[in-house]
Amino acid sequence: MNIVIDAFGGDNAPLEVIKGSIDAQKDFGVDVTLVGDEEKIKKCAQENGLDITALHIKHADTIIEICEEPTEVIKSKKDCSMAVGMKMLADGEGDAFVSAGSTGALVVGATFIVKRIKGIKRPALATILPTATTPTMLLDSGANADCRPEMLTQFGIMGSAYMNKILGVESPRVGLANIGAEESKGRELELETYKQLKNAPVNFVGNIEARQLPMGDCDVCVADGFCGNLMLKLYEGMAKFFSGELKTLLTKDTKSKIAALMVMKNVKEFKKKVDYSEYGGAPLLGTAKPVIKAHGSSNARAFYNAIRQAKQFTETNVIDEITTAIEQLKSKQEML
Amino acid sequence: MNIVIDAFGGDNAPLEVIKGSIDAQKDFGVDVTLVGDEEKIKKCAQENGLDITALHIKHADTIIEICEEPTEVIKSKKDCSMAVGMKMLADGEGDAFVSAGSTGALVVGATFIVKRIKGIKRPALATILPTATTPTMLLDSGANADCRPEMLTQFGIMGSAYMNKILGVESPRVGLANIGAEESKGRELELETYKQLKNAPVNFVGNIEARQLPMGDCDVCVADGFCGNLMLKLYEGMAKFFSGELKTLLTKDTKSKIAALMVMKNVKEFKKKVDYSEYGGAPLLGTAKPVIKAHGSSNARAFYNAIRQAKQFTETNVIDEITTAIEQLKSKQEML
Repeated sequence: MNIVIDAFGGDNAPLEVIKGSIDAQKDFGVDVTLVGDEEKIKKCAQENGLDITALHIKHADTIIEICEEPTEVIKSKKDCSMAVGMKMLADGEGDAFVSAGSTGALVVGATFIVKRIKGIKRPALATILPTATTPTMLLDSGANADCRPEMLTQFGIMGSAYMNKILGVESPRVGLANIGAEESKGRELELETYKQLKNAPVNFVGNIEARQLPMGDCDVCVADGFCGNLMLKLYEGMAKFFSGELKTLLTKDTKSKIAALMVMKNVKEFKKKVDYSEYGGAPLLGTAKPVIKAHGSSNARAFYNAIRQAKQFTETNVIDEITTAIEQLKSKQEML
Repeated sequence: MNIVIDAFGGDNAPLEVIKGSIDAQKDFGVDVTLVGDEEKIKKCAQENGLDITALHIKHADTIIEICEEPTEVIKSKKDCSMAVGMKMLADGEGDAFVSAGSTGALVVGATFIVKRIKGIKRPALATILPTATTPTMLLDSGANADCRPEMLTQFGIMGSAYMNKILGVESPRVGLANIGAEESKGRELELETYKQLKNAPVNFVGNIEARQLPMGDCDVCVADGFCGNLMLKLYEGMAKFFSGELKTLLTKDTKSKIAALMVMKNVKEFKKKVDYSEYGGAPLLGTAKPVIKAHGSSNARAFYNAIRQAKQFTETNVIDEITTAIEQLKSKQEML
């Protein structure tokens, strides 16, 4: 198995990408191909005393920046590390692709270079969130600002397959993000999606209010990419806010600092629990081959986890599962 | 000044409403009128040894339940405590109205009984959120699931006037909730609202990503009622999640429990900081007279704060300020 990784995606590229790739290659027994400017990769490794002889390198001339138009990845920036990496997937030279680069460009590239699973309207960005109980997958968390009900229904099916196959959740509870529990709540989008999800081959548990999300009241939370992105980023912001407050609480004065030492182990466990980089990156669901979006601020540990996730994604045939479920949905809808 | 309060709104009515009203009447020197079944109010007060002689009572036969259609408040439930209270406002018998009852019914009642400020398309529910720095007003946080750009622009103007007049924020920073900082981000709704807010008589600071919200990066955060409600409830859920984790962290074993005693004062300060009931209720902005939505789970303290807020809302002429700003916007738009 060959995991292809964008060596120039994210705030800490290429150093942290290289570090995470070295560790992952060693621990998971997979081939890892770094995509990007070969000279720069080698120079960075050398300067930091890193041995990259066990890794492959695929040269790419340029980088697509966050500020560039996403569609440039298939136009003027066909030679960027992200596009070259995805082309490898499309050509069968790699099994999965990981990048911490521009989300927009990754979605465009995945759609037009890697291509979608047959019948899938749009790929969705699926983020796994830590909760008070079991983790929840939120999708779409930012690939599609505007969505139609058919898309949301497909997101439910894809998320369910992923949570079942990769996280081992039996009959994942699929919820629809909404402003009330009743079937009559929400916009036209939610009203119609509710009806469709009721008839889809998933364990639909109805509407989920946003306050239930951090309690882990569903395993898959379906939303359009605009609302999903707002929720994802608020999750992130709230974690930062509370971590800051916790720090203040435990460093205010000498007595607090002594108390802090006494609960240091618990604080570390808490931080690990709420740190979603532990789950790896966010899979882009709906593409014909596994594509993982790593967080822009990923460090070596996050890239390491993203590669592990890419390996699992490839091994577990989630894509076949999704393909079958989408066909089931289609024949069910045709019968109605 | 007469503050009218729905004695039968919320999970803890009428007991907590009565308690909060007694304290508020004493401390703020305002008249308080309890609206609802007179016999039940008197019985509840008697059973709990509460002296309500300083409060007024306005009898109302029925109650509108959360599960009922909001429009019933102006149809079959015209005699409910909420409708009767708002009628008092409309008839000049009261200066402000507070209710912890159904949000939907309150919005309908405020629109059709209390009526809107001239030129206002829709009233918005405005919630004040605690942040790492200064509080932020989020609106609309749930009154209108579907919004047009003109409505969002008005929300910005109304929130700005409120934050300035009531919370004393000079030139409040108005941000638009969006999935990216750039002007080109978002749906049609955000693209058009961005243009309008740029030309509105407010201090528009551009798009605000949801992760910035808990940092207090703006004073007024504008969103449609669907997204706003998702964010508000996620805020609530995250606070519950983290408070639970904090409790676990400080009660895990004997050592943690000792540490907890050492930081108890800080924990209390933290809880007070993140508890938004301290700010009172959520004003419904855009109505011709002050209407405050108290949280459904309000206790006496929250009702007390909501009455204080209703008093401030009435005294500070926010409504005149909004009226003037809306007229300014209109003449500015006509000039363009």
